[in-house]
Amino acid sequence: MIAAQPPDPAAVIDLLGVLAYGELSAFDRMAADARMAPTTELRAALSEVAAVEMGHYRKLVDRLTELGADPQQAMAPFVEPIEAFHARTEPHNWGEALVKAYVGDGLAADFYREIAAYVDEATRALVIEALADSGNSEFAIREVGVLIDGDPTAASRLSLWGRRLVGEAISQAQQVAADRDALVRLIVGGAGDLTGIGQLTDRITNRHVERMTAIGLSN
Amino acid sequence: MIAAQPPDPAAVIDLLGVLAYGELSAFDRMAADARMAPTTELRAALSEVAAVEMGHYRKLVDRLTELGADPQQAMAPFVEPIEAFHARTEPHNWGEALVKAYVGDGLAADFYREIAAYVDEATRALVIEALADSGNSEFAIREVGVLIDGDPTAASRLSLWGRRLVGEAISQAQQVAADRDALVRLIVGGAGDLTGIGQLTDRITNRHVERMTAIGLSN
Repeated sequence: MIAAQPPDPAAVIDLLGVLAYGELSAFDRMAADARMAPTTELRAALSEVAAVEMGHYRKLVDRLTELGADPQQAMAPFVEPIEAFHARTEPHNWGEALVKAYVGDGLAADFYREIAAYVDEATRALVIEALADSGNSEFAIREVGVLIDGDPTAASRLSLWGRRLVGEAISQAQQVAADRDALVRLIVGGAGDLTGIGQLTDRITNRHVERMTAIGLSN
Repeated sequence: MIAAQPPDPAAVIDLLGVLAYGELSAFDRMAADARMAPTTELRAALSEVAAVEMGHYRKLVDRLTELGADPQQAMAPFVEPIEAFHARTEPHNWGEALVKAYVGDGLAADFYREIAAYVDEATRALVIEALADSGNSEFAIREVGVLIDGDPTAASRLSLWGRRLVGEAISQAQQVAADRDALVRLIVGGAGDLTGIGQLTDRITNRHVERMTAIGLSN
């Protein structure tokens, strides 16, 4: 899966930039969503997940600096689509906050892990480390389970919410793709052709379905 | 300064509880205040300070558990006064957010460091570690300096804000003291008598004045 040609530096910077701003905004949104927790303990649990994102953010920004890029410039093109995603998927209750943290993080991690296969080794290691699960999944699976057990209508409402999250994520990813030629060439180059892109999308979709099943929701 | 008698376990749990909820609420408030930053870089800088608080929170909560206490119960009495402090000192702009992070953290650190002198060694080491400066001061001093240089009226406005922060902190501390006998006895026992308490208050006040001077503001 490693590209025969060395990766385009502009694409690597795009990748690190979108990932860094993704971490910063995930921190910000999860920190706010944690307020919806029913107990101080659960509020602290989501706050801890949020805090982990800032550690990742720092490493990504440091790597951008190492590569001679300006981190702020690298992130700039992605601020609007990522903020748009969050604005359209603002959770209204604790269950929605949990599912968003779980599904959103999972989707982002899958997508970036796929792209990371096409970049240089140092960047790949960093990206995979940044996206390692911080214990968020187990926590979300357990707590969504509690909600579903206590309210028979929760599963269908949260399943619908999960579909909305995916739809908005795809919509914003398409807008990013339309604007970022280097990043798209990196993906197309890595995946070889449109069949490769289709397979990549399939793998990400399959993992999303697995995640929804793991958390007790339908796709 | 070590108390002749072993510290009252209830007071140690109070100390760890107020400190833990202080960290959690500082995380929450700084994460929100970071949105007022004029640049993504500064937003990330305050977000990183916020994230550090969650590491401290975890250690304090773990210590409460080690001591056989329920962390949620230990924090419960302090939720209202700490939230009241934050509600009365909600920053309205980036300068106020910076000064609050700097003065608030400094005051809290001084106060807890004083009290920590009267508790067992393991708790003392933990409290001092939890309150170690995370680079927040240098960052705040530099950025408040930028604001003061760019706006001649900023220094007097932010000096007033600093005084308000101290006033609200003292007011909430007094309410906590009125309710928490064990904690007060720990302080009075440690300080020996009312003269000791007066000296403790003087030391904290002096350090606040030093901090205000360091950041270019008047007390």
